[in-house]
Amino acid sequence: MPITKAVQKLEAYVPGEQPKIKGIVKLNTNENPYPPSPRCAKALAAFDLDRLRRYPDPVFAELRKALAVLNATGPENVFIGNGSDEVLAVAAKTFVEDGEKIGSLDPSYSLYKTLADIRGVPWKGFPLPEAKAAEKENVSLFLWTNPNAPTGEFVSKRKISAFAGKFRGVVIVDEAYADFAEENCMELAARRGNRNVIVMRTFSKSYSLAGLRVGYCVGPADLIGAMYKVKDSYNVDAVAQSVALAAVKDQRWMRRNAAKIVKTRTWFVSELESRGWDVLPSQANFVFARPPAGNAAEIFERLKKRRIFVRYFSGAKTAERLRITIGTDAEMKKLLKFI
Amino acid sequence: MPITKAVQKLEAYVPGEQPKIKGIVKLNTNENPYPPSPRCAKALAAFDLDRLRRYPDPVFAELRKALAVLNATGPENVFIGNGSDEVLAVAAKTFVEDGEKIGSLDPSYSLYKTLADIRGVPWKGFPLPEAKAAEKENVSLFLWTNPNAPTGEFVSKRKISAFAGKFRGVVIVDEAYADFAEENCMELAARRGNRNVIVMRTFSKSYSLAGLRVGYCVGPADLIGAMYKVKDSYNVDAVAQSVALAAVKDQRWMRRNAAKIVKTRTWFVSELESRGWDVLPSQANFVFARPPAGNAAEIFERLKKRRIFVRYFSGAKTAERLRITIGTDAEMKKLLKFI
Repeated sequence: MPITKAVQKLEAYVPGEQPKIKGIVKLNTNENPYPPSPRCAKALAAFDLDRLRRYPDPVFAELRKALAVLNATGPENVFIGNGSDEVLAVAAKTFVEDGEKIGSLDPSYSLYKTLADIRGVPWKGFPLPEAKAAEKENVSLFLWTNPNAPTGEFVSKRKISAFAGKFRGVVIVDEAYADFAEENCMELAARRGNRNVIVMRTFSKSYSLAGLRVGYCVGPADLIGAMYKVKDSYNVDAVAQSVALAAVKDQRWMRRNAAKIVKTRTWFVSELESRGWDVLPSQANFVFARPPAGNAAEIFERLKKRRIFVRYFSGAKTAERLRITIGTDAEMKKLLKFI
Repeated sequence: MPITKAVQKLEAYVPGEQPKIKGIVKLNTNENPYPPSPRCAKALAAFDLDRLRRYPDPVFAELRKALAVLNATGPENVFIGNGSDEVLAVAAKTFVEDGEKIGSLDPSYSLYKTLADIRGVPWKGFPLPEAKAAEKENVSLFLWTNPNAPTGEFVSKRKISAFAGKFRGVVIVDEAYADFAEENCMELAARRGNRNVIVMRTFSKSYSLAGLRVGYCVGPADLIGAMYKVKDSYNVDAVAQSVALAAVKDQRWMRRNAAKIVKTRTWFVSELESRGWDVLPSQANFVFARPPAGNAAEIFERLKKRRIFVRYFSGAKTAERLRITIGTDAEMKKLLKFI
């Protein structure tokens, strides 16, 4: 059998469904209900097809510079990947020796375990991470999702900074949902003297560009430089670089949509609570909520029949809850009718 | 130091220059001098930006089906990556155990050694590959570039089939340049009973879409299925899937451009030979040629001053030659003026 033993055993990560049927309410993969910036439309329309004959800029000079300016750091502190997925895969190769472990919160983003499997190292979850405990477990890369998924819960910058200060390894703060939160850790990643904090962001959520596959991270120049050595030569295509650049340049559009989503979230949580649901405090574009009877699986199926897709995770820590993406007010009202 | 020892030692792959200055003659990275199909322009113009809100199809149903039909095989036999680079990286994880080796021709595509370094296994080059010799070296994945780069030389389907028949591991025939050749191995990959032959193709050369990052491969369903487990969840973006699909559907355009390039190649080789250059027989969209005095490095610099970029590889087996991409007739005439 020419397939490696590890891959034979590998349980592939199962992403949320992408149903092809029209007219569905899709609240299962934390996508943005509002369209990308009109500047992205312009960038796409103005894209000179002849540029596709040539390889894209392997070091994304323009996009990288724009992201450096946005985050008050230097281009040498910015790495860009084919979605955060690739940023994570590159980090797992760059910062984890064979025999070391990848750590994360537990529960957290279910991809992390698969990531460790693919890297060929063990994964270890921590309900409440402490640097000493993580090091005792030989964790060299800690993936701290903040706000966390699927819970939506938020940990303060101060706490994460305290953890990183004591931790010998690398901490990646996965801030996919940070634009929906009150605070973030970018300052920790961008500040001088930062030794081990990398903050990761994505264009998939707040910028409404999940289909484009652009994620990036900010961190110390030596760590970021090492990631460039590991990535595929031309990992972000020319169209994606152009459209993402247009999105970065329209911060107002992104901020306005994020604010709308936060407003809908606040209202939707109160509606759920008035129906007796237990909702974890969320600073993300989704909520993780327990129906009064704990019959999450049943409600998941019921909603699906109505063409309303939410996310259900079996497993001891998650099975009584549903993760519901915040869509438009109209979408949330439709959902509320059937629960 | 949180960077792994292997990454600290890693010599990053150095891709050919992508100079930003205008008005250059760019014959250094085997790009196509002709634009992509007008259908690609249409697909780009018609792309509904709102689709980018959503994650792309993680299993590329439409593009995969089109590629299966094109190559007379089933969708379960087709894997698609973010450029051939990703196809290769996924294959290196899927088919090579720790301690095993990646083999290739020598000289060949210089990325392969970096690929093995990143995978954390040794690379071994073979001037004339034999299954027994490769197995004795513990090679479990053999990357056979055909036509080869940087030489342009071609090996018959019969020979590669004979090698694969005797080889226990997986053979990936990297056919990036096959559309410029007389014959290819796709039949070996697509036929029933195929155990270990994977044929890899790219949209970067004959389809003029290097900037888009789409590569794919065809092989036995069990091997291809394992590769799907290892890839990033959403590895090919929605725009790239649409534009590549449009390109696949315009085979005439691709064929016509490939034929033009082959015609220019034939003429250009005779011009070089009439000037005393030694040109290896090429079935690719480039030639690997030795100037009469063997002063390749000097001519490389001379051309660069004239804003004509070709590729020079230092190293014992390559230093007396230049790799020159076949551009338009006008571009090749300009180059001939300065050598």
